[in-house]
Amino acid sequence: MTKNAFKTFDAQELEIQATTELKPLVPETELVFGKHFTDHMITIEWSSEAGWNKPHIKPYGKLELEPSSVVFHYGFECFEGMKAYKDTEGHIRLFRPEMNMDRLNKSSARLGMPTFEPEELVKVITEFLRIEDRWIPSKRGYSLYLRPSIIGTQTALGVRAPDTALLFVIASPVGPYFSTGFTAIRLLATTDYVRSWPHGTGDCKVGGNYAPCVKPQSIAAEKGYQQNLWLFGEDDQVTEAGTMNFFMLWENFDTGRKELVTPALNGLILPGVTRDSILSLVKSWEAETGIFVREGEITMADILKAVEEKRMIEMFGAGTACIVSPIKCINYKGKDIEIPLGKTKNDSEAGPLTKRINDTILDIQYGVVEHPFSRIIL
Amino acid sequence: MTKNAFKTFDAQELEIQATTELKPLVPETELVFGKHFTDHMITIEWSSEAGWNKPHIKPYGKLELEPSSVVFHYGFECFEGMKAYKDTEGHIRLFRPEMNMDRLNKSSARLGMPTFEPEELVKVITEFLRIEDRWIPSKRGYSLYLRPSIIGTQTALGVRAPDTALLFVIASPVGPYFSTGFTAIRLLATTDYVRSWPHGTGDCKVGGNYAPCVKPQSIAAEKGYQQNLWLFGEDDQVTEAGTMNFFMLWENFDTGRKELVTPALNGLILPGVTRDSILSLVKSWEAETGIFVREGEITMADILKAVEEKRMIEMFGAGTACIVSPIKCINYKGKDIEIPLGKTKNDSEAGPLTKRINDTILDIQYGVVEHPFSRIIL
Repeated sequence: MTKNAFKTFDAQELEIQATTELKPLVPETELVFGKHFTDHMITIEWSSEAGWNKPHIKPYGKLELEPSSVVFHYGFECFEGMKAYKDTEGHIRLFRPEMNMDRLNKSSARLGMPTFEPEELVKVITEFLRIEDRWIPSKRGYSLYLRPSIIGTQTALGVRAPDTALLFVIASPVGPYFSTGFTAIRLLATTDYVRSWPHGTGDCKVGGNYAPCVKPQSIAAEKGYQQNLWLFGEDDQVTEAGTMNFFMLWENFDTGRKELVTPALNGLILPGVTRDSILSLVKSWEAETGIFVREGEITMADILKAVEEKRMIEMFGAGTACIVSPIKCINYKGKDIEIPLGKTKNDSEAGPLTKRINDTILDIQYGVVEHPFSRIIL
Repeated sequence: MTKNAFKTFDAQELEIQATTELKPLVPETELVFGKHFTDHMITIEWSSEAGWNKPHIKPYGKLELEPSSVVFHYGFECFEGMKAYKDTEGHIRLFRPEMNMDRLNKSSARLGMPTFEPEELVKVITEFLRIEDRWIPSKRGYSLYLRPSIIGTQTALGVRAPDTALLFVIASPVGPYFSTGFTAIRLLATTDYVRSWPHGTGDCKVGGNYAPCVKPQSIAAEKGYQQNLWLFGEDDQVTEAGTMNFFMLWENFDTGRKELVTPALNGLILPGVTRDSILSLVKSWEAETGIFVREGEITMADILKAVEEKRMIEMFGAGTACIVSPIKCINYKGKDIEIPLGKTKNDSEAGPLTKRINDTILDIQYGVVEHPFSRIIL
């Protein structure tokens, strides 16, 4: 590694090559997550010799890579998922982008790949969004999904920290996860497959965490469950729900108090931006709601007992794609455990806290309520 | 999935497009593992709609893929490492290719990707080698390394079993791992990082197993150790050495007999072709050598005790790249444990069994000794 290897890129050096042919916009009703992409993409090359090259915005198009590129062989790849929102005044907003930048750096470093100055990429993304403005939907619940990725492009097959890499960002307009009210999901708790392990990569957003999960997910789908509930350890600790962080609202056995609890960041859990935001918001409501917030271990025995004793109140998954996804059932060891969905009249598929979290985060994302989580960039 | 999804490809439908410009061969002295590639490559496309397409041999060149291709994001990639050898009569040989084909299918299926009829790919590889004949070195220890890979090429970002995939094979001429006698390696036993775990993917050759290992490997290198010794569990069971299977020859505590032991295939261990071959060969020598073969648990406590009691005889890693790689030291919890290297005069860096295994497998690979492990294909 030369000294240059640690040189970050500079957003001021951005070179823009505009496309000569704009694609037609996709009608809102036809938006499918990650299917349609905008006119341009960001690419930034890195080498251990020269460090980061200038950032580029260029027409969206294929990557041309040697078949020996290590991204095809050894899983040198990490990514982020974030969204750009258009508020009622036409401003473009990002939701806590610094958290995505930091996590991308952490994931990249975990795989021996380069890091960068977080705010420089936010600046490049800002210029990208200025160009792709027409692709950012303005309707509540709609947004432009951004997918920053770093891949190892070294063309020699030796297994080592890649000597070249590529950071790229692509963008896809997306609609609301739940277009007509919530639909609570059913989970299959699995012990036949394990998503992550202590001292593994479960707390990083790296490619290798995902592909191994589709087979267990197919098994769940065949049995009529939307996602897996990932467990760990001999006491079947809950870790994640599908690709979401896991939350439950219950009455604590010991304290008797109402508690929103989520697994602690013990290395097995992805430190979700939505997860962190929910913890912060619900904590800020404590005086009013009487709901405490706790990060800690949750076992299947806890869940079973809480449901049995009618102490379980609500349960949901959380992530950038859906914000929250209410959970109404967990199949554990062949038996369906029915989870209460709260007691709202208007939306029988989500409890009041789940719904409030969703509405509040949407309000912040779309600038209905001003909050430090939402950053106006344009 | 349509019925077609399960249709395999047919080697008889192979379409060949020869390159118009042959590359210069690389001098034997300049061969570096996986750095130089031959003139052509095999590509076979798959889709869930149409199943496998016709196999193609075409000029070696870049893959052009949408940046949204799931291989760049979710680790949909698996591969094999195998070699083609030229024997003294000019025949081209493969070493147990059916094992690589079966393992590639197993890895692909584990990631929700397609499988194929093993012998059809061997046939296509045979035609490929007929074309690349001049790239196969004939000197003992030299060979043409083959890298079959399957990658997910779906262009929509949803995390699910990819609806399109690409099987490709590239080839790189390689020299002997040890060009001037053995050089025994030193390992850093790590508990800060874990390579694999029960119900994970440690027994599959998938991309996601590799990138997470380069950071621990860098840490080992900085401290003067060539590879990590991967441990698992509270009792620090040995699993693998770098990217190799682990073997030790010792005098068993309980039975007092000489034993070659390697970790059992418990889901954490890659079922190595070399590993399996070594077990089979050493078993066949039992009557003559008095060395028993056992697959079972090895803990660091076993190793410490055996070294202390002078019951440790030899230790080595095994894999396609090196065949065997003698181990002379393990650093465990900050202390170097010196491992004996046997008592040969000629090669102080490898013990007699390690050396015999290496020589025997080379003899089989190069057809000096006829053995069912070696298949003449051309």
